[in-house]
Amino acid sequence: MNTNTTTSQATVSESNRSRILQHLYHNGISSRAQIAKALGLTPAAITKITARLLEAGIITETGDFEGSKNRRSIGLTLDVTRFHVVGVKFARSLVEIGLFDLAGNRISLEDLPTVSEDTIPATLVTIRDHVNRLIASDDAIVAVGIAVPGPYLRDQGRTAVVSSMTSWRSVNFRTEFADAFPVPVYIEQDARAGALAQYLFDRHSTCENLAYYLMGEGVGLGVINNGQLINGAQGAATEIGHISIDINGIPCDCGNVGCLERYCSAVAIHERLNNSHIVAGTQSMTHAQACRALFAAAETGNSAARVLVHDIGRYAGYGCVTILNAYNPERIVVGDIVSEAGQPLLDAIHEVIDERAIPDIARATTIALSTLPTDATVTGAAAVAITQFLEHPSVFFDDV
Amino acid sequence: MNTNTTTSQATVSESNRSRILQHLYHNGISSRAQIAKALGLTPAAITKITARLLEAGIITETGDFEGSKNRRSIGLTLDVTRFHVVGVKFARSLVEIGLFDLAGNRISLEDLPTVSEDTIPATLVTIRDHVNRLIASDDAIVAVGIAVPGPYLRDQGRTAVVSSMTSWRSVNFRTEFADAFPVPVYIEQDARAGALAQYLFDRHSTCENLAYYLMGEGVGLGVINNGQLINGAQGAATEIGHISIDINGIPCDCGNVGCLERYCSAVAIHERLNNSHIVAGTQSMTHAQACRALFAAAETGNSAARVLVHDIGRYAGYGCVTILNAYNPERIVVGDIVSEAGQPLLDAIHEVIDERAIPDIARATTIALSTLPTDATVTGAAAVAITQFLEHPSVFFDDV
Repeated sequence: MNTNTTTSQATVSESNRSRILQHLYHNGISSRAQIAKALGLTPAAITKITARLLEAGIITETGDFEGSKNRRSIGLTLDVTRFHVVGVKFARSLVEIGLFDLAGNRISLEDLPTVSEDTIPATLVTIRDHVNRLIASDDAIVAVGIAVPGPYLRDQGRTAVVSSMTSWRSVNFRTEFADAFPVPVYIEQDARAGALAQYLFDRHSTCENLAYYLMGEGVGLGVINNGQLINGAQGAATEIGHISIDINGIPCDCGNVGCLERYCSAVAIHERLNNSHIVAGTQSMTHAQACRALFAAAETGNSAARVLVHDIGRYAGYGCVTILNAYNPERIVVGDIVSEAGQPLLDAIHEVIDERAIPDIARATTIALSTLPTDATVTGAAAVAITQFLEHPSVFFDDV
Repeated sequence: MNTNTTTSQATVSESNRSRILQHLYHNGISSRAQIAKALGLTPAAITKITARLLEAGIITETGDFEGSKNRRSIGLTLDVTRFHVVGVKFARSLVEIGLFDLAGNRISLEDLPTVSEDTIPATLVTIRDHVNRLIASDDAIVAVGIAVPGPYLRDQGRTAVVSSMTSWRSVNFRTEFADAFPVPVYIEQDARAGALAQYLFDRHSTCENLAYYLMGEGVGLGVINNGQLINGAQGAATEIGHISIDINGIPCDCGNVGCLERYCSAVAIHERLNNSHIVAGTQSMTHAQACRALFAAAETGNSAARVLVHDIGRYAGYGCVTILNAYNPERIVVGDIVSEAGQPLLDAIHEVIDERAIPDIARATTIALSTLPTDATVTGAAAVAITQFLEHPSVFFDDV
């Protein structure tokens, strides 16, 4: 159906280059014959394209390995440890900077000091300095990925709404970062970055229809449908946090009423804690600290804490029912701060799904907590950069 | 990102065949050189593929025409009037059968008698007979498309929920129709079929990010994101009618609470009319008749009717705000029975969007009433068949 009439011979070559890289990324060492068979390309085309990738040093030959029919053949490999990317996560008051290899393994991770409305400009400077120092000290870094709160308007470089910390709205991420580093920079909405991380790095699943449900300071969603991110016209699709679950409910900064985010984000949970006596001293905590204090209290048997976690889990569940009806994914991965509530959260989500989702669809969907070793969003920022590296290799190596 | 490792040389050829057909479908008469340039294929490949399409009689040569640089060249064309498809629309109590050419022009259209729970089996027989008679009398018919209410579970051939007429749920459309005709049959959820119709036949727009918002006996949605339908894992995505707009609202047959469909479908409107005195005699009307009576009353100045149309329009608007946040389309086309309320409906939708949508996103989105000459769903059923014809030509012509 997609009749893109601007496709040229050059983009076809780049597309084949990308397909070969992706094949090696997902399947490991492969012979030219195996790649040719898997991708439906002629052996001559494979030889030509892999020669250029070898010459550019992106892939390497591994010497003989056992091919099909027990014949020995030369293996090709994309060494995922040879290239590094930097991932930067913005989440209202949190900024994290991580260094990763192409397999998503974390090499280093640093949290910047908590950001407030008036320290945003200073924070932007710190990030630029910090990332530039990383790049200067590591030749293997090929790109920077940045994850920002949605709805992120990709063409404009701006976030359209940031509930509870509105000054971020005036930051143009493209202007701030496009030319800040000697390597290419890619910016993506945070939950969509998280979905890319699940898609690239979760070795448990090879799921082509996947939703990453980010329950952090905001509530966001990234959806991979048939192997492709759902972006929308402006890159602002899948904004679950601003879908209303109650048209007569709590007003939101975005203009809508009853936004899911107002009921089960870390910010909303923190507000509820500040207005209750479940956990002492939450007023002076960060949102993440307050949530963790609640989850710890629930775990140690505090019944008011348990009731609140259950209530939050039910709201998370209403969101899941919407996700099922809106996107029908095979798998929903719940991540970020709120997911640290663990099994009680998952139980409440399942309770709501059992009550309210269409049974045929609910039965076919798995809900899981994120198992990525670090926070999926900063890993996601890395995944944004890695995805570009795999999809547009010629950007990274002029001579390819 | 889509690393489909089963791609073979055969599917690559079929894909190129399809791209050429689609190019001719969307761009009209083109020379081999123009096609080669547009699709990034070599002239040799174009010559080979078009030779087979010519031999199979799918495309024809048009003789000399003015090519680029004023050189005369031979044109190729896909004559959209040479092939016909049958579209069948199911919508609870309504069944329509239409005959169309590949451009979506209607050749004939027939409504079957209103269906009730106990006439479903007889209706299935009538449809089979009727379509077989059409095929027997018209050699140009190459396929049948069927549009059914969602959520339609494509792999199983069943609709998971049909609010207000539950017997449809026990009908397996695949079993009933897969082998019923001498030509291939394709079944799709109704709103998704409508989206395909808007995408293929609306000459006003060449929009790659489009939502068709079906407001009929049910409320449904089909979304084209970057030129591709959003399907989900089971083909049951974009079920806007069962997304809750009020988690404490009206229960729905699907198990959810506060489903949009319960507030602004033709069935919901009919219920409200039966419980009021706005229009007399609605109890004995079909859902469509009752809605039309309401819209006529509003147009002639009945103030209670106007208030009700406005209220329905606001619910339609809440749905649009959800569509904006969930899919960020460039264009939302509102179609089916409820869209016949016209400008007052559109005004109420805009009122809600102005109040509740994220301004940056609302500004970038057009909301329009469907302008397709016939009901978009039966045209959509035809579009489902035409899309398959364009995407998988070899299915239709063994010798290609």
